[in-house]
Amino acid sequence: MVLNKEDKRMTVLDLFKNKNDLLDSEVTIKGWVRNHRKQKEFGFIDFSDGTCFKHVQIVYDNKLDDFEAIQKIHVGSAIEVVGKLVKSINDQQEFEVQAISVTLLGDCPEDYPIQPKRHTREFLREQAYLRPRTNLFQAVFRVRSVAAYAIHKYFQDRGYVYFHAPLITASDCEGAGEMFHVTCFDLDNVPKKDGKIDYEQDMFGTEASLTVSGQLEAETFALSFGKTYTFGPTFRAENSNTKVHANEFWMIEPEIAFCDLNGDMEIMEEMLKYVVKYVLDNCPDEMNFLDNFVEKGLLEKLEKLINSKFTRITHKECIDILQKADVKFEFEPKQGEDIAKEHEKYITEYFNGPVFITDWPKDIKAFYMKLNPDNETVAAVDLEVPGAGEIMGGSQREEDYDKLLSRIDELKMDKSTLDWYINLRKFGGCVHSGFGMGFERLLIYLTGVDNIRDVIPYPRTPGNCEF
Amino acid sequence: MVLNKEDKRMTVLDLFKNKNDLLDSEVTIKGWVRNHRKQKEFGFIDFSDGTCFKHVQIVYDNKLDDFEAIQKIHVGSAIEVVGKLVKSINDQQEFEVQAISVTLLGDCPEDYPIQPKRHTREFLREQAYLRPRTNLFQAVFRVRSVAAYAIHKYFQDRGYVYFHAPLITASDCEGAGEMFHVTCFDLDNVPKKDGKIDYEQDMFGTEASLTVSGQLEAETFALSFGKTYTFGPTFRAENSNTKVHANEFWMIEPEIAFCDLNGDMEIMEEMLKYVVKYVLDNCPDEMNFLDNFVEKGLLEKLEKLINSKFTRITHKECIDILQKADVKFEFEPKQGEDIAKEHEKYITEYFNGPVFITDWPKDIKAFYMKLNPDNETVAAVDLEVPGAGEIMGGSQREEDYDKLLSRIDELKMDKSTLDWYINLRKFGGCVHSGFGMGFERLLIYLTGVDNIRDVIPYPRTPGNCEF
Repeated sequence: MVLNKEDKRMTVLDLFKNKNDLLDSEVTIKGWVRNHRKQKEFGFIDFSDGTCFKHVQIVYDNKLDDFEAIQKIHVGSAIEVVGKLVKSINDQQEFEVQAISVTLLGDCPEDYPIQPKRHTREFLREQAYLRPRTNLFQAVFRVRSVAAYAIHKYFQDRGYVYFHAPLITASDCEGAGEMFHVTCFDLDNVPKKDGKIDYEQDMFGTEASLTVSGQLEAETFALSFGKTYTFGPTFRAENSNTKVHANEFWMIEPEIAFCDLNGDMEIMEEMLKYVVKYVLDNCPDEMNFLDNFVEKGLLEKLEKLINSKFTRITHKECIDILQKADVKFEFEPKQGEDIAKEHEKYITEYFNGPVFITDWPKDIKAFYMKLNPDNETVAAVDLEVPGAGEIMGGSQREEDYDKLLSRIDELKMDKSTLDWYINLRKFGGCVHSGFGMGFERLLIYLTGVDNIRDVIPYPRTPGNCEF
Repeated sequence: MVLNKEDKRMTVLDLFKNKNDLLDSEVTIKGWVRNHRKQKEFGFIDFSDGTCFKHVQIVYDNKLDDFEAIQKIHVGSAIEVVGKLVKSINDQQEFEVQAISVTLLGDCPEDYPIQPKRHTREFLREQAYLRPRTNLFQAVFRVRSVAAYAIHKYFQDRGYVYFHAPLITASDCEGAGEMFHVTCFDLDNVPKKDGKIDYEQDMFGTEASLTVSGQLEAETFALSFGKTYTFGPTFRAENSNTKVHANEFWMIEPEIAFCDLNGDMEIMEEMLKYVVKYVLDNCPDEMNFLDNFVEKGLLEKLEKLINSKFTRITHKECIDILQKADVKFEFEPKQGEDIAKEHEKYITEYFNGPVFITDWPKDIKAFYMKLNPDNETVAAVDLEVPGAGEIMGGSQREEDYDKLLSRIDELKMDKSTLDWYINLRKFGGCVHSGFGMGFERLLIYLTGVDNIRDVIPYPRTPGNCEF
């Protein structure tokens, strides 16, 4: 219970967990002054040590010897408080701490950027190293941490092996996006040989980049351990300045042997509900705050998701519904083509809940997806969720050696770095499926915060690489 | 219990967990042929689906219609078996499956590289995508997964916030090692301005690299949430071909506010014991295998660690002991200087257990470590463990604004990208500490496997960037 065994201090979380036992006891806490209201004979410090979303109120009076010095303590300062835990006279608080001593541990100047008032998110992005001290980011980043753990717990409890995919890679396997170069070369003096860049002199003896997906490597683990998942960073070198794109983000990519598209969808649905429920159960204060101040109706939206049965329709059925809709879409829905944001929105509203859209036209999906018997569609699935649109995508993987090879040839892809991937179909290949979920997309959905820059501690977007 | 809800199959893990209930029942399993022994009237398939370390024996006889076809199934093939779970006639096995049908799902040619015999680790490195199918790597990579989860569980159960440090960074903050460049430039045509590389045209508008540590950013979270930890990839662009160096590896970096060096050591000791115990408890088959075939005495070594009290000595005391030792060292131990591998070994043997060495000469440690009152040493600690040497390093961080600044100036470091880090000491700074643990170093210690290339699924080392 005691964080630092040496100094016997308690955390605010300890106080809330043990408030009944601690009532009228003396406690020692260390943390920061979030606000400070001063009256002639009293002072009230809004105190947080970051260990839980709730703050605790410190009350001190002029019977303390250093009353005047305490009154001078600035917002943002680190302090140690020794005091008695007492029932609050204020109805809103469960308890407060009646100070016996308040000691300044680390001062904070008056021009401290984080003052007890409303700051814009744009301003806070510039103060990214201080923003986790605000209520909003205390909520968002704790939810990020708890959701990450929920994902690990879901898969580990079910026997999945956690797979760390390599981040530096020599192949653009998926073709999922533009890649960053990784090099040790002096960019001012790149070595050449016969007029070409001499990658043999670089660290890996070959051209290297940052990965866009760990899926292909994860398949090698699925065909060894049966069930695996990745949870790690991925990168896109895209110059997109939108609310949902970052150059560096975290992905979860499970991969399951002997599992077809139906099994894949079962897992996608179960996992999403599990993570949402885990966060609601374990971050009640944070989620209430987000419901009140960020997205009205957030809790209702999430509770509804947990209790809904996800609809399953094919891409063809989806387009049929869209074409019959009595709505003027900006983009006309067409068979054989991708669907737009507005279509995603319509379809989740039409079914009043999450919708799996399956069996997509092969030409708008990746090379590794299983070709259906119609030779036109692949066993792919996108999960569309009300209020968020596409939140995950998956597919059954092509397990047929010849079909995979001919698709790779059709697309004129470079086979030379993919031989191992293709060989998986030769050496005891089997039906297998998987999916990918962008962790930040999930967090945007979970927190109601609509900009990816505000769910990543130190976001990397075009022009931004601070901290 | 059923992995793929659609096909009602069971995993081998299910069979072992429920063997009593399932005895004499019909089961369906899918997995791979690890070995195949054929007799005239019988056949025995060593079957694994990767969901647990144990295999199950499939017995079939010539009463099956397709007996001859089954006998032709190659090692490495994926199969489906329907059969009855029966007590094994063989004492070594707890049960076996008497086949009712065996169906080939995915063939495997006879030149399959992974045959049921001993392969060298060097050979298996070249077959990295198939090696998780061997007993050794089934053990190593499941231990990797379980140890990773144990680390998350340790910190999450204690209220730490999991922090995803940025991987692309514009600053070489720690100076911990050489860094990889990250760029979108065409290396054949790097844009220049006034004769210099024009980084303003690159993605982030500045020179960018892959991080060597998330610690400095983690400190910003510690001073907001009280307790935080990173667990993510880090990179070193070093051309070192040793058994313990890789260019890409995973690190754990906890950071704790209001915690001094003593508290830091308490946490290091408790966490290490927790993770070791968790792995022993949750991977008994894997650990027994590693004890038998990789490092004799591994289990005893780990049990001893769990039950030992870690010794604490200062660097000065350490050198005193080394200088008095009746041993001819290759490198003479000297006050004020670093210690060598042979010294680490001697000191853990001297104390017959793990040793924390504290208070190191400031000139051989990092700039951010807290200067002791002697002005000569810093509040740093290395943990030396028998049979592994240094496994973690930590320190109390310099919380004094002026001292930190003067150290940065002394070392002629670039302050411009560190202003936010320095400011942490101005805005409610406090005593805080943290440590770093290389995840692969831990795995080498846990598994007895002595080469970092064999504890990372797809290692990146100089000249190697395959898969």
